Amino acid sequence: MLHAEIIAIGSELLLGGTADTNSLFLADELLKIGIEVRYKTVVGDDPKDIEHVLAQGFRRAQVLITTGGLGPTQDDLTRKIVARVMGRQLVLHEPTLKAITERLTARKRPVTAEQTTQALLPRQAHVLPNPVGTAPGFFLTKEDRCLMCLPGVASEMKRIFTESGGARLEEFAGKAASGTLLRRRLRTFGLTESDINTRLADLFQAERGAAIGLQAGEAGVEISITIKERDAQTAQSVLKRMERAVRERVGDHLYAAGSQTMEGVVAMQLKAKGLTVAVAESCTGGLVAQRLTSVPGSSAYFNRGFVVYSDRAKTDLLKVSESLIRTKGAVSAEVAQAMAQGARQRSETDLGLAVTGIAGPSGGTKEKPVGLVFLALADKRQAIGRSFHFSGDREGIRRRSSQAALDLLRRYMSGKAIE
Amino acid sequence: MLHAEIIAIGSELLLGGTADTNSLFLADELLKIGIEVRYKTVVGDDPKDIEHVLAQGFRRAQVLITTGGLGPTQDDLTRKIVARVMGRQLVLHEPTLKAITERLTARKRPVTAEQTTQALLPRQAHVLPNPVGTAPGFFLTKEDRCLMCLPGVASEMKRIFTESGGARLEEFAGKAASGTLLRRRLRTFGLTESDINTRLADLFQAERGAAIGLQAGEAGVEISITIKERDAQTAQSVLKRMERAVRERVGDHLYAAGSQTMEGVVAMQLKAKGLTVAVAESCTGGLVAQRLTSVPGSSAYFNRGFVVYSDRAKTDLLKVSESLIRTKGAVSAEVAQAMAQGARQRSETDLGLAVTGIAGPSGGTKEKPVGLVFLALADKRQAIGRSFHFSGDREGIRRRSSQAALDLLRRYMSGKAIE
Repeated sequence: MLHAEIIAIGSELLLGGTADTNSLFLADELLKIGIEVRYKTVVGDDPKDIEHVLAQGFRRAQVLITTGGLGPTQDDLTRKIVARVMGRQLVLHEPTLKAITERLTARKRPVTAEQTTQALLPRQAHVLPNPVGTAPGFFLTKEDRCLMCLPGVASEMKRIFTESGGARLEEFAGKAASGTLLRRRLRTFGLTESDINTRLADLFQAERGAAIGLQAGEAGVEISITIKERDAQTAQSVLKRMERAVRERVGDHLYAAGSQTMEGVVAMQLKAKGLTVAVAESCTGGLVAQRLTSVPGSSAYFNRGFVVYSDRAKTDLLKVSESLIRTKGAVSAEVAQAMAQGARQRSETDLGLAVTGIAGPSGGTKEKPVGLVFLALADKRQAIGRSFHFSGDREGIRRRSSQAALDLLRRYMSGKAIE
Repeated sequence: MLHAEIIAIGSELLLGGTADTNSLFLADELLKIGIEVRYKTVVGDDPKDIEHVLAQGFRRAQVLITTGGLGPTQDDLTRKIVARVMGRQLVLHEPTLKAITERLTARKRPVTAEQTTQALLPRQAHVLPNPVGTAPGFFLTKEDRCLMCLPGVASEMKRIFTESGGARLEEFAGKAASGTLLRRRLRTFGLTESDINTRLADLFQAERGAAIGLQAGEAGVEISITIKERDAQTAQSVLKRMERAVRERVGDHLYAAGSQTMEGVVAMQLKAKGLTVAVAESCTGGLVAQRLTSVPGSSAYFNRGFVVYSDRAKTDLLKVSESLIRTKGAVSAEVAQAMAQGARQRSETDLGLAVTGIAGPSGGTKEKPVGLVFLALADKRQAIGRSFHFSGDREGIRRRSSQAALDLLRRYMSGKAIE
C-alpha cells in the first residue's frame, strides 16, 4: 500500500479564515487510485518551513502532493524550494512559456517577468498543463518516491489533477502496487449518528479487513466502509458484502453513494422521469434553487424559483392568501403547502417545492422557535408536508433545511414520500 | 514569538469527506494571545503515526494543541500516547470521574468501563473541564514547551478553550513572552493577483517587521499584513502605516477587512441607506439571493428574488420582452438590464440587481463562450451594466458571478458604480 502526504502551502491557511479544502478532493482521488493519505500538513510561506516539511514528507510517505505557491508573486515559493530539496535546477519550459504568453495576450494583459517565472520548472519534471489558469502543475519522481505540485486555486487544481495528474499517479502507483485499499462512502439523511450506530452494531467487527466509520454533518450521516486486503478480488467481494449489509440496515435513508450528492441524485431522478419543478423559498433564501441549478443541464427540469422573503412577496408572486398568513403565520404547514401549490401553478411545472422556517438568530418564539422549518411538495393531485426542528446556527439551519427539502423531493420520486 | 502546531487526530479527517475546521477557530484564538501557528498537521488513528507527529511537534513548536481522540472508544488514543511521549503515567482523576458519572446518570445512560477511561489523565496534567460533554481536555507543560489536548467535537472544543484552555495558554505565553504578532486581512475584488503585486511592489520590503501575503480566490484577492515586533505599541503603529499604504494603492477595489464578507458589507450599506433590493438571477440560480439573505436581519433590505432560468420565466415574471431575448439573446447586456428593471418594478424595491451568463460546462459558443456573464443594476433613474469573462468550472463561475454582482451593488452605494 502506498502512503501519501498532502502538503498545503500558504500562510493564509494558518490564519483563522481559510480552510484547506483542496485536500478533501485529493484524498478522495488518491483513494480511488489505491493510495492512502497518511498525513496532511499545512505550512506557511516561510522558505525554511516549506523546506523542512518537504524533506520530512519524503521521509515518511512515498507520494507527496503539494498545493499552492505556484503563482507569479514573491510569496509563491514552491518551485524554488522543490528544486532545492530535490537537488535539481530550475529550467525554462518553452511550451509553458508559450502557453502563458498566449493566455495573457488573449486577455490583453502584459507578459511580465513575474508571469514568466511560472514557466521555470525543476529539471526532468513532467509538466501538468493548466487549461484554466496560468501556472501549470508538475510531477517528479526520485528513486521510489514521487512529488506532484499543484496550484492552490481549487478549480485549477482539480482540473489539472483530473486531466493529467491523476493518470501520472496511477502509473506510479501501478509500478509500486502491493495490497488493495477500497473505500466506499454511503450518505444517509433522516437518521442520527447513534440510530445508525445501533443499526450497524453487528457490522463493526464483522470482517477482519473491513472498517466502518460514521460522520455526522449538515448533509446527514455519512457511512464509510474501508477495506484493506492483499488482493483486489477479495477486497471487492468483502466490500460488496459489507455495502449490501449496510444498505439493508439503513434502507431508504440512504440517498447517495461515492461522490454523488443529494442534488445530483434528485437531478437524475427528475430527468429520468421527465418531471419539472419550481421552488418557493423563504428562510433558505435561494439555496434550494442554487443547489438544483448547480448540476449541469439543470434547465431540463428547472425553469424558475421564487425567493419570497416577505409576506407580501408570498401573496404577490404565489397567490398565498393574506388571511392564511394572518391566521396560521408565515411559518406554518399551511403556508408551506400554499407556497408549493402557488409555485407549481405559476410556473406550470409538474412539481412545486416550498420551504418556510425560522433560521434565526432572532425571530423565534416559544411556539415557533428558531430552527422550526416547514416543507411542502405539491403535484397536480395533492400537497404533502413535513416539519423539522433543526439545531445549529443560521447557516446550519438553512443548509439542513435545503437538504431536507431535496430529500423530500427524492423520496417523492422513489414513491416513498406519501404519508 | 511563540510558535504553535495544531494537530488534528482522526482517520475521518484523512478521508475525502471531512475538513478540519477546528484549527480555524484555534488559529484565530492563538493569534489573539500572540501565538503564531506555524504548522497544522492531520494524522489518522494509528498509534505510531500519532506518536511520531507529537514527538516531531515538540521539536518544532513550543505550543502543541491536539484535537480529537479523547472519547471513550477504542480508536480514541490521545491520552495514552501523550502519556507515553511525555514520559508520564496515566492516573485516575477523581473529580473528572465524578463529573462523568453524574453526567451519564442524569442522562440515564450506564457508566461503562470505557466511559471511565476518560478520567485517566497524564500525571501533573491540569484538567480543562468539559461543561457540554464527557471527555475533559487537559494541559501539560514540560520544560519550555506546553501541550493542550482538546476533544474533536467542535462545540466541546470551543467551549473548553473559551472557558479554561485560553487562559492557561495566555498564562504560559505571558511567561514566555517575547514580541507581538498582529495580522490584518484586507479583501479586494476587481484586480488580479499580479495587478496587486505590482501596485504593492514597494511595500513588500518596506518594513523589517512587516510581511505582505496575497491570496487569489473566487471572492477576489486577499491581502494579509503580518507584523512581528518586540513591543505592542510599535507593532500597532507599523500595522497602521502598512494598512494605510495598502489601502491607498488598491483604492476602492478594497471591499472588506478582518472577518467581514462582501454580503456583510453590502448588507450594512443597504441598511445604512435604507434601501431595498430585489434580485433576478439566471446562471447563478439563487446564489446572489442566498448570500444576501445569509446575513441576520436581511428582511430589512431584501424582500424577494427571482430565479429566472428559462426564457419564459424571464418574460413571465420580469416582463423582459420576447423580442429582446430573440434579437439580443438571453445572455446579453440588454436582457440583464431588462431583468434588473423588471425585478425592481415587480418588487417595488429601490434597486434591482440582475445576473445572466453561461456557467457551462456546455452552452457556450464562439461569440458567447462559457464564463461570459452580464450584470445590471437598476434604480429609478437608470440601469448600469457590467460584463465579465470568468474562468473556472461551473461552480467557480457561479461564485465569481455572485461576487461581481454584490460588488456592483457595493460600488453603486459608495457612489462609484456610475460609468
